[in-house]
Amino acid sequence: MDRLSKDEMALWHAWKRASEVVRARIVEETAAGASAPLSDPDFGVLTRVAEDGGGVLRQNQLAESMGWHRSRLSHHLTRMEQRGLIARRPVDDGVEVRITDAGRALVTQTRPLHAAAVRRHLLKPIGKAGQADFLAALERLLAAHEGRNG
Amino acid sequence: MDRLSKDEMALWHAWKRASEVVRARIVEETAAGASAPLSDPDFGVLTRVAEDGGGVLRQNQLAESMGWHRSRLSHHLTRMEQRGLIARRPVDDGVEVRITDAGRALVTQTRPLHAAAVRRHLLKPIGKAGQADFLAALERLLAAHEGRNG
Repeated sequence: MDRLSKDEMALWHAWKRASEVVRARIVEETAAGASAPLSDPDFGVLTRVAEDGGGVLRQNQLAESMGWHRSRLSHHLTRMEQRGLIARRPVDDGVEVRITDAGRALVTQTRPLHAAAVRRHLLKPIGKAGQADFLAALERLLAAHEGRNG
Repeated sequence: MDRLSKDEMALWHAWKRASEVVRARIVEETAAGASAPLSDPDFGVLTRVAEDGGGVLRQNQLAESMGWHRSRLSHHLTRMEQRGLIARRPVDDGVEVRITDAGRALVTQTRPLHAAAVRRHLLKPIGKAGQADFLAALERLLAAHEGRNG
């Protein structure tokens, strides 16, 4: 079987299109209400540092939480630092990432828009009844990947 | 409720990470066996023209099948044409996209790798029993988007 069957192809295409569409809509609607340019990774970094870390988080914890490679995150943080959204400083066993006042203002401004967009484009179409099964399926996809790297 | 609950956030993060990881793996493993650089959209264009169209497809049908904006597709096809993978010509009611011999050779070479990667990273972790429900959930996500545009 050197090619996907019609059913296999349908699932693959639906997966790809849904991934693109849902993400694009949520980014668009979140960024539309922001007073500064805001990408999806920017938002991911700011909310994690603001919430998981209470304003300060280790760079390696942030990388793990985002599922990003260390070097990809580091480049992204450099740009966010240049824009005044975060500040970094070396500490004993790594690097500390701290949200700035400007970063925090941007989170406060856009968080309700982001929450509404995630509900509208992801949670509501899946439906309350379907959410547990859908999450379980996504976790199987992630586990397959992590197993391969582990 | 101006912020996502813990459960809502878990589903959103799993969705984002799974989207990134599954796509990246499949692209990597498909491209690794190709004799020319091959991105995911390149592969999507070539297989659709080769298979859905038997070698020739209208540009607007291709845009619809990929869920891409007309202008995004047009820019992408210009680059693929420069690389000798497809050729375009104006016809009465639009533009015809034709796969070249080089494009067809690239599809033949990479299709089995792509099929194996899609099975390994998407279909197998979801499992035979879960595929129908998972596809239905993805179709609800796509329908929510299409309804909004319709």
